[in-house]
Order: sequence, then structure tokens, then C-alpha cells
Amino acid sequence: MSDPGDRLAEEAARLDAEDRLAAKRTEFVLDDTVYLDGNSLGALPAAVQGRLAEVVAREWGELRIRSWTESGWWTAPERIGDLIAPLVGAERGQLVVGDSTSVNVFKAVVAAVRLAREEDAERNELLVDEGTFPTDGYVAESAARLTGVRVRPLPAHRIAAAAGPRTAAALVNHADYRTGELHDLAVTTAAVRAAGGRTVWDLCHTVGVLPVRLDADGVDFAVGCTYKFLNGGPGAPAFLYVRRALQPRFDSPLPGWNSHAEPFAMAPEYVPAQGPARGRVGTPEILSLLALEAALGVWEGVDVEEVRAKSLALTDFFLRCLAVHVPPARADVVTPLPHGRRAGQVSLGWRPAESAERVLQLLGERGVLADFRPPGVLRFGFAPLYTSFCDTERAARVLGEVAGGSVE
Amino acid sequence: MSDPGDRLAEEAARLDAEDRLAAKRTEFVLDDTVYLDGNSLGALPAAVQGRLAEVVAREWGELRIRSWTESGWWTAPERIGDLIAPLVGAERGQLVVGDSTSVNVFKAVVAAVRLAREEDAERNELLVDEGTFPTDGYVAESAARLTGVRVRPLPAHRIAAAAGPRTAAALVNHADYRTGELHDLAVTTAAVRAAGGRTVWDLCHTVGVLPVRLDADGVDFAVGCTYKFLNGGPGAPAFLYVRRALQPRFDSPLPGWNSHAEPFAMAPEYVPAQGPARGRVGTPEILSLLALEAALGVWEGVDVEEVRAKSLALTDFFLRCLAVHVPPARADVVTPLPHGRRAGQVSLGWRPAESAERVLQLLGERGVLADFRPPGVLRFGFAPLYTSFCDTERAARVLGEVAGGSVE
Repeated sequence: MSDPGDRLAEEAARLDAEDRLAAKRTEFVLDDTVYLDGNSLGALPAAVQGRLAEVVAREWGELRIRSWTESGWWTAPERIGDLIAPLVGAERGQLVVGDSTSVNVFKAVVAAVRLAREEDAERNELLVDEGTFPTDGYVAESAARLTGVRVRPLPAHRIAAAAGPRTAAALVNHADYRTGELHDLAVTTAAVRAAGGRTVWDLCHTVGVLPVRLDADGVDFAVGCTYKFLNGGPGAPAFLYVRRALQPRFDSPLPGWNSHAEPFAMAPEYVPAQGPARGRVGTPEILSLLALEAALGVWEGVDVEEVRAKSLALTDFFLRCLAVHVPPARADVVTPLPHGRRAGQVSLGWRPAESAERVLQLLGERGVLADFRPPGVLRFGFAPLYTSFCDTERAARVLGEVAGGSVE
Repeated sequence: MSDPGDRLAEEAARLDAEDRLAAKRTEFVLDDTVYLDGNSLGALPAAVQGRLAEVVAREWGELRIRSWTESGWWTAPERIGDLIAPLVGAERGQLVVGDSTSVNVFKAVVAAVRLAREEDAERNELLVDEGTFPTDGYVAESAARLTGVRVRPLPAHRIAAAAGPRTAAALVNHADYRTGELHDLAVTTAAVRAAGGRTVWDLCHTVGVLPVRLDADGVDFAVGCTYKFLNGGPGAPAFLYVRRALQPRFDSPLPGWNSHAEPFAMAPEYVPAQGPARGRVGTPEILSLLALEAALGVWEGVDVEEVRAKSLALTDFFLRCLAVHVPPARADVVTPLPHGRRAGQVSLGWRPAESAERVLQLLGERGVLADFRPPGVLRFGFAPLYTSFCDTERAARVLGEVAGGSVE
């Protein structure tokens, strides 16, 4: 076995044999494809099917309305928030699950701007990282328009330096969805805070792949998605974190009856609930929520530091495999190489950019699922709980075959 | 059989035998209880369980990300909106399903106020029916605060007369959730429109029990719930109607990436989609959406006029049964008696009010499920697709037994 490709295949098998998270694969429904799109829609945890069948047949079908209390439906948003809390470095009682990420960005940004302007009405800037996932940018514009501030787009790494006396809040993605670049949460949060502004972090692309330290780093608000690395299912509800010290002053623009201090008093005046329930709005989507709760069972006993170590090992290994299999003229690695600046994916700027979608299709035909973001970026997401080193090696090898073929 | 109670039981059996909707009962999972809480959480349509199992196992588990296109996930919000359209008198292409009712009230009210103020900036009043379901009132206050208008609460029947040159918009519940009173949609809409304002109707308690004529009556915006009489499941996503002529001017305060004209272009500038998709926000909750879609299958071939006729027959019959079984000193009927002012429930003001919750509990122990709204109101919801006249007779009889007992 002197061929470098063969040696990588051998190494992959050895790395899998040594992988302490390898057993987690059995908790997912997988097949013989290499699924590297868990950063878009996580694979199905095996526990979901049975649990959802029980929810429908027993809790909805038989107990019906009684399930709001007897099956714990009413408390699901905070209970599931507490399951996610350790993954984002938060003590219990600060997360609530419900609504989409976009809607939660709206709640958090409006509330952050209100807090800052309540303290100093001259603060009129909302800093937004310019590479943001689009929805955050659109929602930020809407929140700015409704609260009387203006959006100032900046590269994420410049937000710390740009924060100043005009800064009301900063909305930053913890990782760039396109490149997989990891942004410095601790430094940016500290700088915005020191300038007197508030931070809102979007954790969609980091929760479930690396340790996040919301409490320790003094983050004010955070939102995140549960259908990517948390495997909650298509369109699973998002989470909202509001730092405990700010909860009493959290002034949500979406005060629904579920966030009332006494929802069943049906009072005409709004009195907000204390604690994370203040982030609720309307009746929570129970089927999606309870599917997510079942999906989160795979995190039991998992150490996020170990997940991060495997994630970096996978992406490092993928980069080595790419170097062997894929001609450098075909692909630029756009994901930063230093570990401290890399999240859980590897993105390639394909050449020519126009053929990236076709490459993606050919990969799919050969059993390797990845995705594409314009212009010409191929994304390979590595979900440490179910992606193996053999998957990783195979993906690079197949990409090399495709690149060496007739694709232009 | 000369006892009036016996005669009613006999009549119930005859009415069920003549009921042209009776066969629909077999499409639901029912048991030997009388379920009169379908106005809070509709019973489980039998088709849901199998469909949801397929969605999880096949569409999520096997096809995964490909299901966004191959399983039609992406188009579900408008496709399901079109299934609801005939139930609210709307032509296709004007409804979108997603988010909670509260969130949709927010979109609609902000958009309605913006439209009105764009035409005349002096319009600074948001009329809200004072008996509104709480969430609508809370969200209206938030929308008013963010758009610079003030909420003016009024009895629903006075909104038509109160609409004037200051009216930006009116948010009205089609039926009062507490009393079951039906409000005059046609007259109120016409009056607000004549005054130059915009209307937002909340159809939560009428969709699925009576014909609604959004297009014919010139309604601007409407929202509604799908987990009550549409049986979509706990927390099933709500719908938003935007009249076709207004769609190009619908200026949503929640512009997420799902409502972008080209969502997958991932463009930094927001360009809203045309048509009902403009009412979307973030990634839709697919499991809840597809459960709802399966649940809506029970409406196939159902004539809403026939549903309304049965609904009125059920509540009329219930009132007659109450007159025989329940001492008038114990309960005031707070639901209007004229058909034109009655929606799909019968509400009783219990005496003494403090014992209403206990009565509800005793009913439950005897197999009759209803619900309670403070202060002292017992609600009996009649879902015409699965409630029988025998159910109705039994509910009144059991209530009479409970009322004649020692409950104080």
C-alpha cells in the first residue's frame, strides 16, 4: 500500500476504530451514502419515529387537550431549552424553544436595541456582520426600521473595533454559513459590551459542533437552529437565549399569550412572564417540538469538547484527503485553516464556479451528499456524531474522481 | 317514552341517522368520551399517523435534504394554504401557512397600519375589539407601539360605526372565544373600508364551522388557527390571508429568507416574493405542516354550508337539551341565540362562577370533555365533522346530573 490514496483509506479505518464517538452512529438512521449535509438538515435520530408515533396516537389521539398538562406539552419550550443549554454553555432557565430562527432574531434584535437605547437614546447603530446569513440581515433591517436605528454592515472581525458610543447592538453569526469561518465570540462580545452595546449571536452553524460559552462570555442574546447539527428535523423550532440578568428587562416585540405571566387568566393587559417563557409567543408547535426533544437524546453523555476535537480531526483529515485527490487548480479552500477560525464545515470555491452545481449533482449520483451556495461554493458539513473518517475519505476521493472527469 | 329526557335521546338517535356528515366520524380517532373541546384542540384525523410516519422515515430519514424539492417540502406553505382557501371563501394563491397565529397577527396588523398610513399619515388609530382573544390584543399593542399608532378598544359591534378618518386598521375576531358570539364580518369590513382603513380578521373560532367569505366581503388580511376545527394537531401552524390586490404592497415586518423572491440566491438585499409566499418568514416547521396537510384531507368533498347547518342544528339541540336537564338557576346561556350571531360553541355562565372548574372536572370524570374560561364560563365546542347529536344529548344530560349533585 504505497499509493497515498490507499494510505489515507487505511488511516481512515484506523481513525474510526479509535473514535470514541463512533458508537453514536448507531443512534442515527443512516444508509450507504456519505451524508455531509448535516449543516443543512441533520440526519434522523432513530428515537424520533417511535416517540412521534406515541405523541400522535396517545397524547393527541387519546388524551387530546389533557396532554397540555398531563403529557407536559405546556412546559416543553423551556424543558427542551434546558436540554440545549449545556451545548451553548448556559445554565438552565435561559433558553426557550419555539418559532423559527428568523422570528427569534427579530425578538432578540428589537429587544437588544431597546435595552441599549433605554440607557442611552443616542445609540442609533445596529452593527451586522456583512457576510451574515441573509435572513438575519433582512430581519435586522426590519428591526432597525421599527426601532429607529440604522444597520451598519461590517466584516465580522471588525465589529469589535467598530463598537462605540453609537452602537446600540451587534448581530453577529458565530460562523459564516458560506465559508465556515468561526468568528471570535469572546472578543467581539467583550468589545461591544465595553462600548455599552448589546450582542445578539446567531449560533446556527456552531451549536452541536463546538463549545459555546454564552454565560462565561457575557453574551446578551443568542438564537440558534435545531435542524442542523442538533438533528431536530426539517424546520424544527429554533431557540432563544436571554441572559438571566436581562430577563426582567427583556422587552419582546412579540408578546403573545404564551409569554404572559398568567396565560390562562386571559387578561386583557399584558404582564410578561418571568424567566425564559418571556421569549414565547403563540401556541408552540408541539409535534415539531417533541420530535426535537427525542432527537436531543443523542447528546446524552456527550462531551462537547470531544465533539469539537473530532470535528477538527474530520475537517483536518478531509483537507489532507483533498490535497491528495483533488487537483488544486479545481478548488480553493475558502474555510480558514487555523483551528481557532474554523467551525464544522469545509467550503471549496470551485473552478469554474459555474460547474459547482453540476459537481454537486455528480457527487450525489456517486453517493456523496453535500451542498452548494452561490457563487460556486461547495459546502461539506461534518456532523461529528455520525460522520466517520471513512465517510470523509470517500467524499474526497469521489470528489477527485468527479474533478478528474469531464465536468467543466 | 313520555319523559322529556327520553324523548330527546330518541330524537338524537334519529338526527344522527339522518345526518349526512355522520360518515365523517369514521375518519377520526374517537373513543367513548364526548369530546366537546374541538374548539381548543381538534380530534386526531386517522390519516395523520401513517402520513407522519412516512414523512419521518422516508422523507426525512432517507431522502433527507432532497425532500425540500423531491417531497414538496418547499412548496408546502402555499399548497396547504390552497387547501384551506375554500373554507374561508378565498381563491387560490392568497393564503400561506406557517408560524403561530400570534406571529401572523403581528405581520398583518403592522402591514395593515403601514398600508393605511402610506395613503394618509394622519391615520393613527388601531381599532381592536375589546373582547379579543388576549394574544391579539397584546400583539396589537406591540404593533401600535412600533408603528406609531394607538390602540382603541371597542365592542366588536361598534367598530363599524367608530371607523373614521383616523382609523388606520381594525383587528376583529370573527367570533368571541369566550361567548361564541359571531361578529358581522361583512358589515364591519365594508364600514372600515369605506372609512379608508384596513381590516384584519381573526378566524380562529370560525374556520371549519361556518362559511367565511373573505374575497366576496373585501377583507384585507385574515389569520386563523388550524388546530381547532381544522384538526391540524397541537400547535399546528396558522394561516395568513392577504387579499390578492394587496399582495404587491404587503410590507411584512418579518421579512425572512423564505419570503425572498429568490431565496437560494442568498442575496444581501431583501427583495420580497410575489404572491402569498411574501407572508413566509423562516424555514417552515415541516413535521407540523405535513401533519396538518394530512388532517385537512377530511375536508375533501365537504360543503361548508352543510357544516354550518349541522353546527347550528347541534347547538340548537344542545340548548333544548340544556333546557330540559339543567336547572336554569345554575347556568346562563351567554352565547347569542339568533343563528346569525352564533358561531360553533355554546358557552354557559355558571352559577356560582367559582364552581365552574369543578363542574368541568366532574364532567370529565363522566366522559364529557369541555373547557373553561375565566370567570366562570363553561365552553362546549361542537365540531360538526365528528360530533353527533347523541354526544350532544349526553353532554347536556351529564351536565344536568352534575348540576343536580352537590357541586357548589
